[in-house]
Amino acid sequence: MKIIIVGASGTIGKVVTEELSKRHEIIKASRSKGDVQVDIESPRSIEAMYKHAGKFDAMVSTTGLGHFGPLKTATDKEFRRGVDSKLMGQINLVLIGQHYINAKGSFTLTSGILGEDPVRLGANLSMANGGINSFVIAAAIELENNVRINVVSPGVVEDSPGNFQYFPGHIPVMMDNVVAAYVRSVEGALTGKIIKVF
Amino acid sequence: MKIIIVGASGTIGKVVTEELSKRHEIIKASRSKGDVQVDIESPRSIEAMYKHAGKFDAMVSTTGLGHFGPLKTATDKEFRRGVDSKLMGQINLVLIGQHYINAKGSFTLTSGILGEDPVRLGANLSMANGGINSFVIAAAIELENNVRINVVSPGVVEDSPGNFQYFPGHIPVMMDNVVAAYVRSVEGALTGKIIKVF
Repeated sequence: MKIIIVGASGTIGKVVTEELSKRHEIIKASRSKGDVQVDIESPRSIEAMYKHAGKFDAMVSTTGLGHFGPLKTATDKEFRRGVDSKLMGQINLVLIGQHYINAKGSFTLTSGILGEDPVRLGANLSMANGGINSFVIAAAIELENNVRINVVSPGVVEDSPGNFQYFPGHIPVMMDNVVAAYVRSVEGALTGKIIKVF
Repeated sequence: MKIIIVGASGTIGKVVTEELSKRHEIIKASRSKGDVQVDIESPRSIEAMYKHAGKFDAMVSTTGLGHFGPLKTATDKEFRRGVDSKLMGQINLVLIGQHYINAKGSFTLTSGILGEDPVRLGANLSMANGGINSFVIAAAIELENNVRINVVSPGVVEDSPGNFQYFPGHIPVMMDNVVAAYVRSVEGALTGKIIKVF
């Protein structure tokens, strides 16, 4: 398969890229590195990425930022970070990508445990994750030509020890299990699933 | 209690207003009617509404629009309707309202069945509903002074027969049950709950 990985240079993206590149042709997309550059906050940039990549069989997104900070002082502007990047950035990868993907292709997005199991400072990411999860189950029933869509929802990953302090009592999840979830989505036959890794 | 109802003139809002006004002081807020006008897409307008209303004990939001249309032709612009109105509009009612609400007060937002049980054309509303649900569970663990927050997630309501065609096989939910969910949130002691009415 020809697979576009958006966020290929990130903590999860680089390990997913390593695994999928064993069996597939990979196009690495990142904000500033990789085979093609993309700013997922810009629909125009996303369109340019797909035009550059040409027809493809799978798009895996392991990217998207959100605001991490206290609810007490949170503002519309801070919340727009998660809206514009992790939420609408990933949704636009699908809305635009559906016009370039091959029949029987797949989209795999990334949400996270905060969508259902919140931590302090995480409301913006909870919102983004919940929105992505619900978008995916809805998009799955409308995508045509047997195109599939799933979302991987990981817990805090063992490779991000800097985040552990914000997740008291959370058992870090093994990166092997996270990578397996993406493989299950891309190479399997599931659609409309929230694949939880926690 | 002194309760602000945003969307008081809507299908659900007017019935919730009728019920809560039996026991409480109600300030009706709507886009163009009511005791105070508010455009929930504008943080400045929300701030002005709260300044006008003064300290309060509960804010109930039964408002928020989204785009209803095919995924196949959906655009970033169309999806921003649900983002700016139903999702961020309701979230900003909380982010700003937390600075005006009395101790032990409550926020009650509205999502809907599409967050977990999608229909054709509804991906934008699914996204908004899922985002609101996850925001509420996250905000509940950070709100101070014993302020509570819940969200009512109704199915298609019996009072909206014009919507039935878009919800094949859905059993319309009774408005009495929907109103009861808002009463449970406002007058009860729950917090961080998605109160499903379907």
